Amino acid sequence: MPVGYSRLPVLSPVAGIRLSAQAARVRYEGRDDLVVMELAKGSRCAAVFTRNAFCAAPVIIAREHLAQTSPRYLLINSGNANAGTGAPGLEDAQRSCEALAQHAGCEAVQVLPFSTGVIGERLPVDRIVTALEGSLATLSADHWSAAAHAIMTTDTVAKGLSLTCEIGGQTVTLTGICKGSGMIRPDMATMLAYIATDADVEVNALQACLQQAVEQSFNRITVDGDTSTNDACVLVATGASAASCIDAGHADYPVFCAAVSEVCTRLAQLIVRDGEGATKFVSVRVEGGRDSKECLQVAYTVAHSPLVKTALFASDPNWGRILAAVGRAGVVQLDINRVELWLDAVCIVRDGGVAADYREADGQRIMNQDEIIIRIVLGRGDVTETVWTSDLSHDYVSINADYRS
Amino acid sequence: MPVGYSRLPVLSPVAGIRLSAQAARVRYEGRDDLVVMELAKGSRCAAVFTRNAFCAAPVIIAREHLAQTSPRYLLINSGNANAGTGAPGLEDAQRSCEALAQHAGCEAVQVLPFSTGVIGERLPVDRIVTALEGSLATLSADHWSAAAHAIMTTDTVAKGLSLTCEIGGQTVTLTGICKGSGMIRPDMATMLAYIATDADVEVNALQACLQQAVEQSFNRITVDGDTSTNDACVLVATGASAASCIDAGHADYPVFCAAVSEVCTRLAQLIVRDGEGATKFVSVRVEGGRDSKECLQVAYTVAHSPLVKTALFASDPNWGRILAAVGRAGVVQLDINRVELWLDAVCIVRDGGVAADYREADGQRIMNQDEIIIRIVLGRGDVTETVWTSDLSHDYVSINADYRS
Repeated sequence: MPVGYSRLPVLSPVAGIRLSAQAARVRYEGRDDLVVMELAKGSRCAAVFTRNAFCAAPVIIAREHLAQTSPRYLLINSGNANAGTGAPGLEDAQRSCEALAQHAGCEAVQVLPFSTGVIGERLPVDRIVTALEGSLATLSADHWSAAAHAIMTTDTVAKGLSLTCEIGGQTVTLTGICKGSGMIRPDMATMLAYIATDADVEVNALQACLQQAVEQSFNRITVDGDTSTNDACVLVATGASAASCIDAGHADYPVFCAAVSEVCTRLAQLIVRDGEGATKFVSVRVEGGRDSKECLQVAYTVAHSPLVKTALFASDPNWGRILAAVGRAGVVQLDINRVELWLDAVCIVRDGGVAADYREADGQRIMNQDEIIIRIVLGRGDVTETVWTSDLSHDYVSINADYRS
Repeated sequence: MPVGYSRLPVLSPVAGIRLSAQAARVRYEGRDDLVVMELAKGSRCAAVFTRNAFCAAPVIIAREHLAQTSPRYLLINSGNANAGTGAPGLEDAQRSCEALAQHAGCEAVQVLPFSTGVIGERLPVDRIVTALEGSLATLSADHWSAAAHAIMTTDTVAKGLSLTCEIGGQTVTLTGICKGSGMIRPDMATMLAYIATDADVEVNALQACLQQAVEQSFNRITVDGDTSTNDACVLVATGASAASCIDAGHADYPVFCAAVSEVCTRLAQLIVRDGEGATKFVSVRVEGGRDSKECLQVAYTVAHSPLVKTALFASDPNWGRILAAVGRAGVVQLDINRVELWLDAVCIVRDGGVAADYREADGQRIMNQDEIIIRIVLGRGDVTETVWTSDLSHDYVSINADYRS
């Protein structure tokens, strides 16, 4: 059960988007594992992909296709990542796109493929192709929830949310779904996210908005420091609402960007809340840094430390481990006498040692919570950065020793 | 039980060194936790310390003392790290040195203090002082084994070894002991190592020799990526053998350095073999890099990946996780089509995909071993680097969720 999240809320349809979820038996039996998302003609599409050098075949193909034309279909499978599969993997991804294009009456280049699951095994293209007819026959604006379920791998719950904002006095809807729970860290993760809106947004403004939102959300979460070969986040604007088209200069563009950021941040936090084996949701907030880089350096060193993460799992206010992580983060000329360490509103370390008024019972009280803010004040500037992470539990080891991802 | 190491071998006395181990009840009951090591007058001493910004009080004091004079005594306690203790911690370390100096009839500055154990609690100086009389009364050249046991914290076995080499036709002895099993990674770790020899070595040559040896040994191991506030490695040359004094220009200096490197490498590997919860001893060897930096980047990214480490624990030849780690290591313009991945002598990946002749059974056979070499060929230069690591098991989580380090 994720920390502070029990089940998928009702997801609003987005005018111009139809989806279907089918059981193609890519790897799993008795569950959906294939999603087709249809974008209305004229939709704009922005995307960011993993920066892992070993990016998977579908990432390569999706990037190529997106560069050439506006997509009409997204084709997503779980169970198999089609990664580490070399040239045959590229052919498999391409062949899947061609099959969907043929059934749907569009060009293969208008299909973006996405895969998540086991690395290093050939994609069972024939099973996917066989399922496509059913996919196209069952497209519906109401299948967001089914799609959110079909893209899951080690996720314990489907993840998604909807919200609205106003553009030029007209209400527009944003609905997003995502999957991911392990292999999560900056530069994306084993993470797929699909966000759609019926707003009408010029494509460069759409891409800029997505990049900014991803940087402050999906690129600020970490479960285990591992990134994946397949990460992708897609933002589609169908333009099907009554709101007029906006570009980066429009007065309501910041409103739209804030809404996209909100969706991305909440989706990203859901991934951490459902982190493999997670029992805590932890915000690591580093304040008083000289620049963003050193704040993130400290935040990630703390968030990745197995010793800090096992202490969190044990609800042990073992602040020495946090301090040791801060100390090895590589901040040049860190004056440890100016560093403060807080758990929520409890100050533990000040002036290079334990705060005079710190009582272990206070630290213990915070550590017993499901959600904890670790606040580190560097005392050398005015920049703040926050990353979100989970603890390291027995279940993390079980999940990753048993599951082949 | 450590991987491939069952118990401490017989350790040879080193002329000019006497030791004692006492139960001072710093934290533990019913075991020794205080070591005094006496260095014969005229001994030379070299040392390297943690680079963690939050270095512990004893590290600060030991550095200061060593800069001022030649030490006569090392004072080492387990159970309490005297770290994160601010100004009072410095006073505690200083007071311990003064007490030993007073009993022994030397200057406080001739005592180097070392502590390992829990962070953030005051050192029980009175208990240490009380034990010192017994310490000095029981000094003996034969107490290396007792000392190796007394410095243990989460270690499951005492660690040490002896070897000899020849300088100018005379045999000299080297004996080393160390402790450490978690919080291990480059730039030292929760690791204390003491190496002594009866060779006679000029002090700058001794320091250079130690730094070089540590760089290629203790700074090439990682269990969990965490470094500690207390790491130290000390090399003492008593000059008590018949061998004449050597400096860096001496013909036998390389022989001596090779012997020190051998001791450091074997001690370092013992720490990994006894890594917290370790069931495997893994060498990550990266070949064909452009420089040492990128080789180490790749090696540590693989060695720190929780997904790789849990796969190792599960004996799962899940090479996709290794490849994903290589891909995110940040090597600029890595041509994945030139990368090779080997487990021992089994080639798994070549030309950007699975090797044509790879059979899962072959990968499985290697993964079932206790000791595994992961070999990654980058195909872009001629530099090689190796790091040693262990797997990530349920016991790692148990140990670190239960023990306060």
